[in-house]
Amino acid sequence: MQEFTVTTGPICGSRKIYSAAPGRKDILVPFRDVALEDEEQPFQRLYDTSGPYTDESAVLSLEEGLPRIREKWLEKRGFSEKLKGSQAPLEGVPFCPASHVVREGKSGEFVTQLDYARAGIVTEEMIYVAWRENLGREEAAKKQGLPSSLRGERVGEAMPAYITPEYVRDEIAAGRAIIPSNINHPEIEPMIIGRNFLVKINANIGNSAVTSGVASEVEKMVWATRWGADTVMDLSTGKHIRQVRSWILRNSPVPIGTVPIYEALERVGNDPLALSWEVFRDTLIHQAEQGVDYFTIHAGIRLAHIPLTAKRVTGIVSRGGSIMARWCLDGHRESFLYEHFDEICEICHRYDIALSLGDGLRPGSIADANDEAQFAELKTLGELTQVAWKHGCQVMIEGPGHVPMNLIRENMDKQKEFCADAPFYTLGPLTTDIAPGYDHITSAIGAAMIGWFGTAMLCYVTPKEHLGLPDRNDVKTGVITYKLAAHAADLAKGHPAAQQHDDALSRARFAFRWEDQFNLALDPDTARSFHDETMPKTAHKTAHFCSMCGPKFCSMKISQDIRDDAARQEGMKEKSEEFRKQGGALYVETA
Amino acid sequence: MQEFTVTTGPICGSRKIYSAAPGRKDILVPFRDVALEDEEQPFQRLYDTSGPYTDESAVLSLEEGLPRIREKWLEKRGFSEKLKGSQAPLEGVPFCPASHVVREGKSGEFVTQLDYARAGIVTEEMIYVAWRENLGREEAAKKQGLPSSLRGERVGEAMPAYITPEYVRDEIAAGRAIIPSNINHPEIEPMIIGRNFLVKINANIGNSAVTSGVASEVEKMVWATRWGADTVMDLSTGKHIRQVRSWILRNSPVPIGTVPIYEALERVGNDPLALSWEVFRDTLIHQAEQGVDYFTIHAGIRLAHIPLTAKRVTGIVSRGGSIMARWCLDGHRESFLYEHFDEICEICHRYDIALSLGDGLRPGSIADANDEAQFAELKTLGELTQVAWKHGCQVMIEGPGHVPMNLIRENMDKQKEFCADAPFYTLGPLTTDIAPGYDHITSAIGAAMIGWFGTAMLCYVTPKEHLGLPDRNDVKTGVITYKLAAHAADLAKGHPAAQQHDDALSRARFAFRWEDQFNLALDPDTARSFHDETMPKTAHKTAHFCSMCGPKFCSMKISQDIRDDAARQEGMKEKSEEFRKQGGALYVETA
Repeated sequence: MQEFTVTTGPICGSRKIYSAAPGRKDILVPFRDVALEDEEQPFQRLYDTSGPYTDESAVLSLEEGLPRIREKWLEKRGFSEKLKGSQAPLEGVPFCPASHVVREGKSGEFVTQLDYARAGIVTEEMIYVAWRENLGREEAAKKQGLPSSLRGERVGEAMPAYITPEYVRDEIAAGRAIIPSNINHPEIEPMIIGRNFLVKINANIGNSAVTSGVASEVEKMVWATRWGADTVMDLSTGKHIRQVRSWILRNSPVPIGTVPIYEALERVGNDPLALSWEVFRDTLIHQAEQGVDYFTIHAGIRLAHIPLTAKRVTGIVSRGGSIMARWCLDGHRESFLYEHFDEICEICHRYDIALSLGDGLRPGSIADANDEAQFAELKTLGELTQVAWKHGCQVMIEGPGHVPMNLIRENMDKQKEFCADAPFYTLGPLTTDIAPGYDHITSAIGAAMIGWFGTAMLCYVTPKEHLGLPDRNDVKTGVITYKLAAHAADLAKGHPAAQQHDDALSRARFAFRWEDQFNLALDPDTARSFHDETMPKTAHKTAHFCSMCGPKFCSMKISQDIRDDAARQEGMKEKSEEFRKQGGALYVETA
Repeated sequence: MQEFTVTTGPICGSRKIYSAAPGRKDILVPFRDVALEDEEQPFQRLYDTSGPYTDESAVLSLEEGLPRIREKWLEKRGFSEKLKGSQAPLEGVPFCPASHVVREGKSGEFVTQLDYARAGIVTEEMIYVAWRENLGREEAAKKQGLPSSLRGERVGEAMPAYITPEYVRDEIAAGRAIIPSNINHPEIEPMIIGRNFLVKINANIGNSAVTSGVASEVEKMVWATRWGADTVMDLSTGKHIRQVRSWILRNSPVPIGTVPIYEALERVGNDPLALSWEVFRDTLIHQAEQGVDYFTIHAGIRLAHIPLTAKRVTGIVSRGGSIMARWCLDGHRESFLYEHFDEICEICHRYDIALSLGDGLRPGSIADANDEAQFAELKTLGELTQVAWKHGCQVMIEGPGHVPMNLIRENMDKQKEFCADAPFYTLGPLTTDIAPGYDHITSAIGAAMIGWFGTAMLCYVTPKEHLGLPDRNDVKTGVITYKLAAHAADLAKGHPAAQQHDDALSRARFAFRWEDQFNLALDPDTARSFHDETMPKTAHKTAHFCSMCGPKFCSMKISQDIRDDAARQEGMKEKSEEFRKQGGALYVETA
């Protein structure tokens, strides 16, 4: 039995609530409500990815895993089932002992969300995500009218004013959105990835051969979702990959993605040349039964693409891509992932695992951005998208990487064109190479932009990128940075629910409601502690000034006085015009 | 006498060098050279803003101030001169005792860089900045060819392959660029602000009524320029404004900007309604004699604009703007800055102080972006630009603020249109309001984008924005964040010298030259310490793997193997094609 604990308790200033989807009292969707000292708006509702860990009333046990909220939905769909007993520990690290029923789709029957969507059937997952995405915007619009962001330029399809389950179904049926939700992962709170929904973010965790362990990885998952990670990828490469993953899966409220080639490589003693389709297939099935929700598969890197990278400044930087390139080159043979892609799809369909088609040839430097190798692979990913859809699999496409700002748009446009509107999922991109230690920021610039252009999910980058493995603080910094980038993208896309949060915070700022300002922040703890460094006294929290200007000088305070005056002056101006219209000339406007 | 010291010594891995401008051995321009373990490229030359503080051979004294490198250039131009003796301490804080000759332009003669440029005369300052901007790119191009960023989309005018003094002169004459360089600030190393040059960044420092002191402000200036601030604004609002500024000016290698209304307000006991043109004029002259290089003047906020802000979510957030609005509204009178703008220009012309026309009505929230108030003021700034040019003054225009990504471009386009191509100088903009504590990042996104679109200088934002005053670490974080944003903009603009730095770092990364990678980073210390957290051993610095994948798994290593193989395979492929052409069919390509 592992002895470790994870971070629990509400986020400062927020209350976890569950709101039933309309007409479905059994579908309870989590949100965070921030209570405000504002008569006009008593609370702000926020999207919440943190699972039961932030619910004060939840009874949690890592050994038993999270409540299986999808269980009853899955049960009635009728899959083959077998009970998987606890597995024996390997080399001292045990599997998570939570009981786990392994399900498998029957041949020829509906399994995936795509199957159901195409058949016009709305699933519980679709109802769940519709209500989750809606974020109470219907109520907000009734009260406040449409937010001003709707003035802005829209890129991509228009988003509807309110999200309905039918809209979710249509977007999934069109291949423009996915709900990653392995039928063996009943614990997740469903979420949707697609360009006409809120932009999502992914956090990578994972131990490597050099460092990290089970306890810290599970805590990283909890920690990342606490601050807003919508999905988590377990990129472990060291020993005990499977055991660590079992703990993560049974305790994760968000979909878990993996790169199965890492485990396959571990199984063959870390020799890329010893890899084979058979080892890879067994790995897929093991992970599918465990409950992994999406697989990164580097099936687009083909033998013929590899020479295109020879003149690059940084060659192949994707781990999966370089492993496959090594394998292909060694025997001058075609990738087994490409050649067995139909079988991969069959496996994924059986469990409703979404395919995340990996960009093994993504550029690793500004110099290599948008080159022939990258786009040759992207074209192949477009072909594979059609194959996956033929099998009824949900699919998204991974993207770069390192791209200067002026070349970002081309990535999105080509992805849409080649991959027929399948969701795009990009790593950054980093917009310059010269700031190691700050690559969460170099990449947040690119991420916000490509999110605006239509990318559906952004894979975070931490300050440790290129330098080492992220620790707890780095994970939080990466997640918050990507949340703000995703939100900036939502604002720029004119997402109907996005600006409400900004407006609530700005109103709190203008009214000197400091506590509201902190609590509405993406990271209330940091906002509060930064404020307290200069003005720690509790009295200052209600003071109508801040440390930037000091009490005599405050521009916000002056501005509030001005508002009152201006209202008065406005009245004077009207009177003046009235007077002039009547032929008078006593009052002359100075402006 | 103050007892404090500032940070000195070279930046880790860099050597300060001085390179004479072609044909002018007396004009020595500073750079940083990073020595590389790369046979093809033994060093990388970088732009350097840090002044003599990073020069190991420099003899420094804060009391005596920096060497006055512009003195002999100014002497031969023939101004009125008077020696300003040490001033008596006020309330215990002394003025900097460095000897200071106060110069004043004679009426009707050339004083400003704009005067000289219009007359077709190249000044020493122009020669200096040309060589500084060139960054050795001529040599680099000869060796490596044009960088690949030149492929990209260009926004705004094309930049020339090499910067010449004549090009600098033409850009200044056209009003598209300025060299802020008060004739009373002989210590500065000249720099240029204009969209066809490297994007510059400004760091704000300044004590407030609540906190901070002399010693820490001077150190903040040294610290900010060490990491790359191209100009520094002293925004002090507390007591001893003048004394603190004298220490900053005599010891600053970069142009110093101020917002004179802050000192004027201090002079009238912090009562906005007690302000007058006379007090303001006296303040300008005092600061002009001290050597301030540019003044932010909020002359664009007119009485008639104020009612336009009444319905805003966050009203007027500019300190200067709100002070002036208060003053205007109180007597329902026009701004004395607007009414006396000709006289302001006369003063600025006398000392060659650049005007930075303040955006007192910039939006303070996403909700208020691009509104009527903001653009009404911008139009007025356009009128004032013409007035300043009529007087022979150099001028730039300040911009927002808080703007969602989709509305950023409009800011740049309108500024170009209204202000006839005068350089734009923006604060961020922040692209969302929801991340206090991370506003260096929310704003770096907007800053990088607007820099790409043509903004010439970016005013930094620190993590403490909206929460408190930045400390030493915040200043560094803000500067590095803005350096990377400015560089991302230079890359996207296709700046001919920008990508060389990225390529050098990426090559070092690919070749596992860890030390080179650290030393080429914008912040070598942080890059090194992040690496050392996971792999502290010296042996790891030369290891051909990193902690992300570990020794067996390294994708970069695999990729290097692939490169060798691919070259071999390429040969095989050619052989195969040759064979086929000859009619053979033995060797069939799988791709």
